[in-house]
Amino acid sequence: MQLKKFLPILEWLPAYKTEDLKGDLAAGLTVGVMLIPQGMAYAMIAGLPPIYGLYASTIPLIIYSLFGTSRQLAVGPVAMVSLLTAAGIGAIAEGGTETYIALAITLALFVGLIQFLLGAFRLGFLVNFLSHPVISGFTSAAALIIGLSQLKHLLGVNIPRSHHIHEILIGAVERFGEINWATFLIGLGGIALIMGIKRINRAIPGPLLAVIFGILAVWGLGLTGQGVKIVGEVPKGLPSFGIPSLNMESFSALLPAALAIALVSFMESIAVAKAIQAKHKNYKVDANQELIGLGLANIGGSFFQSYPVTGGFSRTAVNDQAGARTGLAAIISAVLIALTLLFLTGLFYYLPNAILASVIMVAVFGLIDIKEAVHLWHADRSDFWMLIVTFIGTLALGIEQGILIGVVLSIAIIIFRTTMPHFAVLGKIPGKPHYKNITRFDDLEVRDDILIMRFDARLYFANVNYFKEKMEEEIARKGKKLKLLILDANSINGLDSSGMHALEEIIDFCHAQGIEFDLASVKGPVRDILVRGGLIDKIGEDNFFMRVQHAVDSFDEKGKERYEKYVLQTNE
Amino acid sequence: MQLKKFLPILEWLPAYKTEDLKGDLAAGLTVGVMLIPQGMAYAMIAGLPPIYGLYASTIPLIIYSLFGTSRQLAVGPVAMVSLLTAAGIGAIAEGGTETYIALAITLALFVGLIQFLLGAFRLGFLVNFLSHPVISGFTSAAALIIGLSQLKHLLGVNIPRSHHIHEILIGAVERFGEINWATFLIGLGGIALIMGIKRINRAIPGPLLAVIFGILAVWGLGLTGQGVKIVGEVPKGLPSFGIPSLNMESFSALLPAALAIALVSFMESIAVAKAIQAKHKNYKVDANQELIGLGLANIGGSFFQSYPVTGGFSRTAVNDQAGARTGLAAIISAVLIALTLLFLTGLFYYLPNAILASVIMVAVFGLIDIKEAVHLWHADRSDFWMLIVTFIGTLALGIEQGILIGVVLSIAIIIFRTTMPHFAVLGKIPGKPHYKNITRFDDLEVRDDILIMRFDARLYFANVNYFKEKMEEEIARKGKKLKLLILDANSINGLDSSGMHALEEIIDFCHAQGIEFDLASVKGPVRDILVRGGLIDKIGEDNFFMRVQHAVDSFDEKGKERYEKYVLQTNE
Repeated sequence: MQLKKFLPILEWLPAYKTEDLKGDLAAGLTVGVMLIPQGMAYAMIAGLPPIYGLYASTIPLIIYSLFGTSRQLAVGPVAMVSLLTAAGIGAIAEGGTETYIALAITLALFVGLIQFLLGAFRLGFLVNFLSHPVISGFTSAAALIIGLSQLKHLLGVNIPRSHHIHEILIGAVERFGEINWATFLIGLGGIALIMGIKRINRAIPGPLLAVIFGILAVWGLGLTGQGVKIVGEVPKGLPSFGIPSLNMESFSALLPAALAIALVSFMESIAVAKAIQAKHKNYKVDANQELIGLGLANIGGSFFQSYPVTGGFSRTAVNDQAGARTGLAAIISAVLIALTLLFLTGLFYYLPNAILASVIMVAVFGLIDIKEAVHLWHADRSDFWMLIVTFIGTLALGIEQGILIGVVLSIAIIIFRTTMPHFAVLGKIPGKPHYKNITRFDDLEVRDDILIMRFDARLYFANVNYFKEKMEEEIARKGKKLKLLILDANSINGLDSSGMHALEEIIDFCHAQGIEFDLASVKGPVRDILVRGGLIDKIGEDNFFMRVQHAVDSFDEKGKERYEKYVLQTNE
Repeated sequence: MQLKKFLPILEWLPAYKTEDLKGDLAAGLTVGVMLIPQGMAYAMIAGLPPIYGLYASTIPLIIYSLFGTSRQLAVGPVAMVSLLTAAGIGAIAEGGTETYIALAITLALFVGLIQFLLGAFRLGFLVNFLSHPVISGFTSAAALIIGLSQLKHLLGVNIPRSHHIHEILIGAVERFGEINWATFLIGLGGIALIMGIKRINRAIPGPLLAVIFGILAVWGLGLTGQGVKIVGEVPKGLPSFGIPSLNMESFSALLPAALAIALVSFMESIAVAKAIQAKHKNYKVDANQELIGLGLANIGGSFFQSYPVTGGFSRTAVNDQAGARTGLAAIISAVLIALTLLFLTGLFYYLPNAILASVIMVAVFGLIDIKEAVHLWHADRSDFWMLIVTFIGTLALGIEQGILIGVVLSIAIIIFRTTMPHFAVLGKIPGKPHYKNITRFDDLEVRDDILIMRFDARLYFANVNYFKEKMEEEIARKGKKLKLLILDANSINGLDSSGMHALEEIIDFCHAQGIEFDLASVKGPVRDILVRGGLIDKIGEDNFFMRVQHAVDSFDEKGKERYEKYVLQTNE
C-alpha cells in the first residue's frame, strides 16, 4: 500500500490491459513527434544547443512515469521553464558555453531536490500562494519576453540578449537594415504553416511539418549560402551519464532560480494534471506525490545531461486526446526520442533556427491572456491590479522578481483587508427570528436597549484594535439606554491571544457600564479556544446562545422574571 | 474644528479651570523630579552623555502637549527607545563621540519624520502588526539586554559593549577579579533603596533618593579616590538650537533603526495613552494624531539636541496618579528640567554611574514578563511559540531583527491558518430549523440526498484548492443518492477572483452530476462580489437562501411539486 503510494506505476502496470496499448502507442508516438521540434526549440530558449532539448525528453519522462500520479501528463522541456533557466543562468555564465551547459544541468538537480523535499515534507500547499491573477500576469509577460527573444532568429540578425522588451524591440528596429530576408521568409512560412494547420485540423503536427518544410527549403534552395542560420551538426547518441558539478558558489547563485522554477513548473504541471484527471476519474492526482515524481524526474535527468523539465500544457492535452491511458505512453515517447537521438540526428543538419523560432512564437503568443485582465477589471478590481503589477513587474524587473512582487502583493492585500474587516449592526426582520445588517436592509426592528453586532473576520492581532474601536463606538452611539450587547460570532472564524485579550477588554468595558454581554452563534473551534484561554468563565456559560434570537429571548425573560419578582411582588 | 483636531491644545486650554492647576502642578513637578535620574540613566543606555537625557526632556514635552491627544501622557526618554538608539547607532559610530551624538540627534529627526508621515497618511494601523506575543517576547529580551548592559557600570569594570547576553555575562565573569567593590556596593545600595521604597510607598520618588544617596556617599566618603566612576562635569544651560546633520549615507544607515523606533515607540505610547484615556473619558485618543504629535515632538526636539523620545509607561502612570488633568502638567515638567539645566547641573558632579545603572536595572527587570508566557502556553500554543521565537530572535540576532522575525512569523502563521481553514458538514438538530457540525454533535439528522457544508474562512487564492478538494471529497463520500449541495456561506467573509473561480468549478462539478447547488446565509459584501463577477447568474437568484432550512424546504417543496405534477398525474 505504502509502496504503491510512492510508486504509482505499481497501480496501473499489473492491471495493464492489451486494449490500453492501442491508445498508449498512438499517444506516445504523437507526443514523441511533437517533442522533436519543441524540445529543440525550447532548448534554444534556455540558451542551450538544441540537442539538450532532446536529452531532456528521455530519462525524465521514464522516471516520471514510475513515480508520478498522473497517467496522461507529458513531462519534458517547456517554454516557461526554459526561459526561467535562461534568466537564472544568463546572469552568471555566457550562453552556449560549457559552463553554461553544466550550470543548466546542475540547476535541474537543484530544482529536483527542492521539489522532492517539498513533496516529502508535504509542503505542496505552498504553491497556493501563486494566485490566479499573479500567474496570469506573469505568464503573459513571460510569453511576451519568450516570443520576442526569438526575434533575432526569426529576422536572422544579431540582437544582444536581453530580458527587457524595449531593448529587444529597439535592437530589432536599429538592425532593420541587417535583416536576412531569406531567414525571415522561412520563419514567416513556418508561422503561417503552423497556424494554418491549427485551423484546419488540430491533429496534424504542424510544428513537425514546419520543420520538414524548413529543412527541405534550406537544403533544396541552398539557403545556407544566403546566410540562413541552421542547427548544424547534431551529435549522435543517447545522453551520457555524469555527475552534475556541484559547489557552494553555484548553489547560492542558482538557488533563487531553482526555487522559482521548482514552484512555477510544479504549478503548471499540477494544474494540467488535475484538469485531465477530472475527465478520467479512474485515478487520483496527489500534489505531494506529484512533487516527488517531478523532483525525481529532474534529479534523475540531471545525471543524464537534462536541464529542468516539467509537465507541459499543450503536449499533455495532445497526449490525452490521442488516447493515452497510462504512463506507458510517456515511455513510448521517450523511446521514440531515444531512437531519434541514435539514428536521426543527421536529418536536422539543415533545420533553420528561424523555424524553431516560429514554433516557439506561435506557442507562446497564445499564452498572452488579455481576456482574463478584462474580466478581472469588471469582477475584482484589486485582482486586476495584481495582474497588472505582476505583468509590469515581470517585464521591468525580470521573471523571478515579477513573481515575487505578485506573491508579496497578494499576501499584503489579504492581510490589509483583514485589518479593517466588514462589521454590521443587526436589526430584526419583523415577525421572523432572523437578524440582518441595518445599513443594507430597511424596515428592520432595532431596540434601544439591545445592540447586536456582527464582526466578519477572524479576530487576531492585526484587527483587534479596529474591533475594539468599532465596538466602543457603537456602544457609545447607543447611549445610556443600552442594557445588552450581543456579539453575533457566526463569522468569527478564529481567535488568537490578542483577539481573546480584546474580547476580554470589551466585556470589562460593558460590565463597567452595567451592560450585559452575550455571544451568539460561536463556532466550535472558537469555543474551544475560549475554553483553553479561560475566557469562558469570564463570559459565563449562561451567556452563550446558539442564535441571536435566543439571547434576546433570554434577556427578555430575565426582564420579565425580574419584573414579576421585584416589581409585582412589591406592589402586592 | 479642523484646527482643533490638529492642535488638541485648543480643546483644553481655552476651557482651563483653576482647579485643574493644582493637579497639573503636583503631577508636573513629580514627573519632573522622576525625569532627572531617569533621563540621565536612559541617555546612558543610549550611549550618550547623561545631559542628553535632560535635553530630551524639555522641548519634546512642550511640543507634544500642543499636538498630542492624550492629556496625561508623559513624553521623554524611555529605556526601550534608548536601547534601540544604541543598537542602531552603535553599529556605525563609537559610543559617546561627537559623530555618535550627531547621529542620535539625526535619528530623532528621522523617527519624527516617519511618525509624522505615518500619521498624516493615516497609516497608524500598521502598528497592529506588532502582536501582543511579539511585543511581550521582544520587550522581555530587550529588558534583559538593557539590564545586563548596565552590569559594567554596576560592577565598575570595563566589559566590552555587546548586545549578546552571553558575551556580556562571560565578560563579567572573566573580569570578576577587577570588580570595583565600592562601586558595586553603591549600586547595590541604590537597588535596595529603590526596591525598598517601592514596597513601602509608591509615591516617594525612590530613584531620586537613590541619586541623593549616591551623590552624598561619593562626596562624603571621597569614593572617587577608590575608583568609583562619576558623571562628572555636566554642562550648564539649555539645549542649543542646531540643524541636525543630514546626508544620504546617514539616511540609509539609520533608516532601519528609525523605522523600528518609530513603530515601537508609537506602540508603547499609544498603549499607555489609551489605557489612561479609558479611565478619564473626557477626551479621545486618536492614533493618527498621536503619530503626528510624537512625530513633531521628535522633529522639534532634534533641532534642540534631543535624541528619540516617546510616551513612557511608568512616568505616565505617575503623572496620572499625581493628578494631571491636562497637557500643562507636561509643560511644568519641562520647565522644571529647564531650571535644573540652568541652575542645578553642578549638583550631579559626584553622581556615580552605578546609581544610574541601579535605576535602569530595577526599571527594566520589571518588564520581563514570564507570566504572559505561562498564560500563552495554556491559552494559545502558537502565540506562545511566537513569543519564544521573538524572545530568542531578539537575544540572538538583535532587537530590530527580533521584531522583524516576530512580525513575519505572525503574518506567516495567520496566512498558513487560512490555507487550510476549518470546514464542517452540517446536520439538523431534530425538531429545530438549525444545523450544526456533525463531528461535534451527536443525534443530528443527516439526509442521504442533501449535503450541507460550511466553510469557515474568506475564500481566496491561498485556500481555494483546499476548498475544492474538500468539497469534492464530501460530494464523493455521499455517493449517487446526493441531489442537493447547500453551501452555508455564513462564515465566508470575502471572496477574490480565485475564490469565484473555485465556486464556479464546484457548481459546474455539481451540475455535471445532476446535483443542485444552493447557497445559504451569504453575507452582503460577498453577494456584491458575486454580482460584480457575474456569478449570480450562474448560481441563479432562486438558489440563494437566507438560511439553510429555507434551502432544504424549497428543495422538498420542489420535490413534492414534481411528485404531484409528474408522478401523481401520470398515475391518474
